[in-house]
Amino acid sequence: MTPPLDRLDAVRVVLVAPSHPGNIGATARAMLTMGLGRLVLVEPRRYPDPDAVALASGATRVLERARIVATLDEALAGCVLAVGLSARPREFAGRVLAVREAAVEAVAHAAHGDVAVVFGTEMSGLSNAELARCGVVATIPANPDYGSLNLAASVQVVAYELRLAAAGGKVWRAPRFEPATVDSIEALYAHGTETLAAMRFLDPRMPKRLLPRLRRLFSRAALEKEEVNILRGILARIDQLIGRHP
Amino acid sequence: MTPPLDRLDAVRVVLVAPSHPGNIGATARAMLTMGLGRLVLVEPRRYPDPDAVALASGATRVLERARIVATLDEALAGCVLAVGLSARPREFAGRVLAVREAAVEAVAHAAHGDVAVVFGTEMSGLSNAELARCGVVATIPANPDYGSLNLAASVQVVAYELRLAAAGGKVWRAPRFEPATVDSIEALYAHGTETLAAMRFLDPRMPKRLLPRLRRLFSRAALEKEEVNILRGILARIDQLIGRHP
Repeated sequence: MTPPLDRLDAVRVVLVAPSHPGNIGATARAMLTMGLGRLVLVEPRRYPDPDAVALASGATRVLERARIVATLDEALAGCVLAVGLSARPREFAGRVLAVREAAVEAVAHAAHGDVAVVFGTEMSGLSNAELARCGVVATIPANPDYGSLNLAASVQVVAYELRLAAAGGKVWRAPRFEPATVDSIEALYAHGTETLAAMRFLDPRMPKRLLPRLRRLFSRAALEKEEVNILRGILARIDQLIGRHP
Repeated sequence: MTPPLDRLDAVRVVLVAPSHPGNIGATARAMLTMGLGRLVLVEPRRYPDPDAVALASGATRVLERARIVATLDEALAGCVLAVGLSARPREFAGRVLAVREAAVEAVAHAAHGDVAVVFGTEMSGLSNAELARCGVVATIPANPDYGSLNLAASVQVVAYELRLAAAGGKVWRAPRFEPATVDSIEALYAHGTETLAAMRFLDPRMPKRLLPRLRRLFSRAALEKEEVNILRGILARIDQLIGRHP
């Protein structure tokens, strides 16, 4: 079995008869941001073209590897699955999946061979005959009153879902520093309670909801050692100012 | 509680100092495809601008409603949550979430008031100071070697996730016609078995795996009434051609 992330190497992005070379470049960029590298162009109207390079914005390596073919058949040759995108409902569509489910299925198939995701022209999408060549029809949930995603924007969403399906949603993590110990946090609460009482902000005989709310706030934040020190420093400074000597 | 899809009306998309008016237009288009309508521009370099209108491609109603403000503070005023996008790890980020989780949180907050999703400049994103104004930092899982999404492409992914978080992934469904009855399907299998035997394609004493495989194939497809009729018609035609008279 291919490791999941490597399965993106088995994915071909197929653009059928794209009109604008800028969209080809923007598609290359969208693909590379998600780790896809294999672009196939079926009868592009204008290509190669400087607009494609300009919009690729550094993803020219995808353009350089792009294959140009004359027919959709050639583009799909050898694939174990073709996923065709369609915004509009089609009467004879077989299996229709939201793009999230389609991406999961595409990545599963990519363990066995090449998978194609197929996008139609900017104006009208894939024809019914082209869509009939695709085992899965995928659609991007969109505003029913304005579902007109730009071609490269559609590729971006599909590539994003493919990456998440292949690799999960791994992202950079918020940095975490040394956590505070439970006893240092309790000492902070004790200090805070005394200081708030000395400030006459808190009536120690009637603490009511104030302290539980503060505990809740700080427990959600998962205090770090340095943060406890900062808060103790603030309390100590208040103590000085109000003449409290603990 | 606001119904989930209406919560998208509580979402502001905030672009901080965008350089290219084309990206503002493409952002408007990306927003509207997912049902977002409220765009706030913090000190755009060039706006209004014909490039914005051109790239909005019909989503000019979003541009017409766009607010232009001088500071991020103004853009965020009144919000119950600000989600800032960042591709790069930041040392002092508080909560960092993948955009899918951040969208769920944003939609939950949108039941209580306005939510802002905040995007930085094309070149360098949000500054650390700007990001510190955001309660949640969201990041789009991307290729670590080339994570440079176009600004409007980032907006497209975030808007897509917001829509899915608000509305689920409802899409058009494959059309389904009248399903075949169980007994008509069994009659099809019986007919098919006889015809395949008469064709000497199937040895009726040794059916082995052929019939189970065919049953499996057709059961996955969930046969419709009309399809059973078509298949019966094909079998009947074969019967004629080979001189079989059932």
